[in-house]
Amino acid sequence: MKNFADRLLEKIEERDNPSVIGLDSDFTKIPDHLKIKNLKKFGNNVRGVTECILEFNKKLLDSISDIVPAVKIQSAFYEMYGFEGMRVFQETADYAKRKNLIVIGDVKRNDIGNTAKAYSSGYIGEVDVFGRKGKTFDLDCITVNPYLGSDGIAPFIEDSKNNGKGIFVLVKTSNPSSIEIQDLETANGKIYETVARLVSNWSEGLEGERGYSPVGAVVGATFPEEMRMLRKIMERSILLVPGYGTQGGGIKDVKNAFNQNGSGALIHSARKVIFSFEKNRPEDFDLTAREECVRMRDEINMAVRI
Amino acid sequence: MKNFADRLLEKIEERDNPSVIGLDSDFTKIPDHLKIKNLKKFGNNVRGVTECILEFNKKLLDSISDIVPAVKIQSAFYEMYGFEGMRVFQETADYAKRKNLIVIGDVKRNDIGNTAKAYSSGYIGEVDVFGRKGKTFDLDCITVNPYLGSDGIAPFIEDSKNNGKGIFVLVKTSNPSSIEIQDLETANGKIYETVARLVSNWSEGLEGERGYSPVGAVVGATFPEEMRMLRKIMERSILLVPGYGTQGGGIKDVKNAFNQNGSGALIHSARKVIFSFEKNRPEDFDLTAREECVRMRDEINMAVRI
Repeated sequence: MKNFADRLLEKIEERDNPSVIGLDSDFTKIPDHLKIKNLKKFGNNVRGVTECILEFNKKLLDSISDIVPAVKIQSAFYEMYGFEGMRVFQETADYAKRKNLIVIGDVKRNDIGNTAKAYSSGYIGEVDVFGRKGKTFDLDCITVNPYLGSDGIAPFIEDSKNNGKGIFVLVKTSNPSSIEIQDLETANGKIYETVARLVSNWSEGLEGERGYSPVGAVVGATFPEEMRMLRKIMERSILLVPGYGTQGGGIKDVKNAFNQNGSGALIHSARKVIFSFEKNRPEDFDLTAREECVRMRDEINMAVRI
Repeated sequence: MKNFADRLLEKIEERDNPSVIGLDSDFTKIPDHLKIKNLKKFGNNVRGVTECILEFNKKLLDSISDIVPAVKIQSAFYEMYGFEGMRVFQETADYAKRKNLIVIGDVKRNDIGNTAKAYSSGYIGEVDVFGRKGKTFDLDCITVNPYLGSDGIAPFIEDSKNNGKGIFVLVKTSNPSSIEIQDLETANGKIYETVARLVSNWSEGLEGERGYSPVGAVVGATFPEEMRMLRKIMERSILLVPGYGTQGGGIKDVKNAFNQNGSGALIHSARKVIFSFEKNRPEDFDLTAREECVRMRDEINMAVRI
């Protein structure tokens, strides 16, 4: 089974693009023409809403899948519509996999013991179906929250090892109030440094051919100085970097997420790409998203290489 | 709109029972006769699995709903079976509400800004359906993870205020490795104390008739000394206490979760109740669960009152 980090880095090299697009497909922001079409086809109900989200996602994926290595699906915007939303989450993930993309589920799950194991089984492992092994979401990778410590993370690491999957552990998030807990000072540095050291420990011995483990970390683009230090502590981890674009993180801020050789980071943007049509014709949302992906790719590559 | 804490405490008083039963309905542990029945009826597939979980839950709810005030549904054991699992999560919640129970969704969700808002809308708020307001899960309350700080919690508090709903914030969890992050010392005490103070701040001004806010806290039964201190810091919060029974927390350990007047705590047990049949005849799983609920209720009431 190929190491997840190798799979991801290979795809990044193939596309020459270290960015990931977030399918944060907030229904209220989807172009009207898609809403009207799906309302007519499926009715003024939750089914119509979720089918509209699915069509939006598929058109985006058709337009960008040859230039980006990965997509991140933000669970909240699907789950909020219940099981019908989760069906569309699943169908979106399947469609992206058929398009040969790495699929990250942004679910930020966390729990302990056999409950963490249950989450892991559903997203990156195998579930029991009357004694038979089955797969549910079968994503490449998910995000997890570290507040419960090692025994909440262990089941996800186990499945990552066994199935060529991966996780990104929240270390330092991009939002202003992340300082309230993550930045508190202890005898061994700030909380996020402790979490980074845990990530480093969890990565030990799991390195693939390129030196990276399937245990990655989320570090916000909005804190460039912290980024530099965290990059060093977690030398074996790929950093998933949100906050680029809409949250105020700029190109200079994300440069520190990369290692000396220009690898090891995946820069995330969602709204600025998928809702870029707001400035143009809504009918062309997929084309403007593609243009924005290209612009972002070139901007990041330029900054990393000079 | 009635304050969530008042609704919950009223139900606890009505049933004279400060406990909550966890529907951690792990398919692999469900009695064979239910598995065989649902396999025959729905097929050897995920549909059969989820319908089996639903039948197990409904029989349990039929048996215990007149003696317990609340149930907590552990999302992981449903989500692991994808959208069909989430359908059964939703149907279980609806069935429990029809049985007049308070329904807590143990989802431990966490995110920022409009993403946290999306989660909140789905679980305890309202969602947009082509410009119309709709409700999805419409639970009474959910658990949330505080690692991202105030702006990750604010949307949930807003919906709690507006809709008579509630949240339980993870403060100190019952698992051994909770010490790795939650117990780290800062200049103002341990991390869980800081989180407890945040919970106390978030509760300010939201007290209902009984003096409690809809912002509760999760504090594991396995740390009785910490419990005493946390009870004091969060005087306006109802404490949800897991770890009673199977995780090693005993009756003396949970006593500290209650205020002087014997209110303010909700003691949680799952496996020890719903899978109690393992010691008896599996066909009578609902009856043994009921017996275990009664035993637990009496044990807790005895300890709190002497």
